[in-house]
Amino acid sequence: MEINDNKLENNTEKKETFKEKRDNDNIVFIGSKPVMNYVTSILMQFTNENNSDVIIKARGKFISKAVDVAEVSRKRFMKNQNILIKDIKIDTEEYEKEGRKINVSTIDIVLIK
Amino acid sequence: MEINDNKLENNTEKKETFKEKRDNDNIVFIGSKPVMNYVTSILMQFTNENNSDVIIKARGKFISKAVDVAEVSRKRFMKNQNILIKDIKIDTEEYEKEGRKINVSTIDIVLIK
Repeated sequence: MEINDNKLENNTEKKETFKEKRDNDNIVFIGSKPVMNYVTSILMQFTNENNSDVIIKARGKFISKAVDVAEVSRKRFMKNQNILIKDIKIDTEEYEKEGRKINVSTIDIVLIK
Repeated sequence: MEINDNKLENNTEKKETFKEKRDNDNIVFIGSKPVMNYVTSILMQFTNENNSDVIIKARGKFISKAVDVAEVSRKRFMKNQNILIKDIKIDTEEYEKEGRKINVSTIDIVLIK
């Protein structure tokens, strides 16, 4: 969903289309779906799309699930493919809700093959 | 690790001094208390105990809260003290429950001053 939305936005800026499309392909946003859906998505990114890295992104309460997804991906499903954690970054995003500023934590987990 | 933590909590009322002494090791375990309790604990580790680093540890659903604790600590409360994230590690722990093997994700966030 989120990935598709980004793609649509990027398509309006023609000159950046290729670069942005490539950037978006290797990002998996964690939401309310089951862990295995995201693991499957990562598997496809590494195999079908032949990406060398995949970025798992999550905010707020989905951060725990993002770590589960990363761990299941590298330990159970891609043991033979030698998937490694290249980098983990945490940060804070600020947004406004009904006139109030709200902070939410974010995580980026970069997997490489 | 968890056993020690539980022991400490159980003895909180009777042995406050003991608890404080045991907290000298620079590890903060994230559980079901409010975020600000852990932030205060980290503040104390850096100031009173004069530690140069503090390790935030969490498992399972508490991983999201561990990231909140790290972000609130470094962004809101210790801005002037220049607290940085030195390292973030994720891993999987296995334990047995009623004869079944269960995996749980873990996170270690190392803060340095």
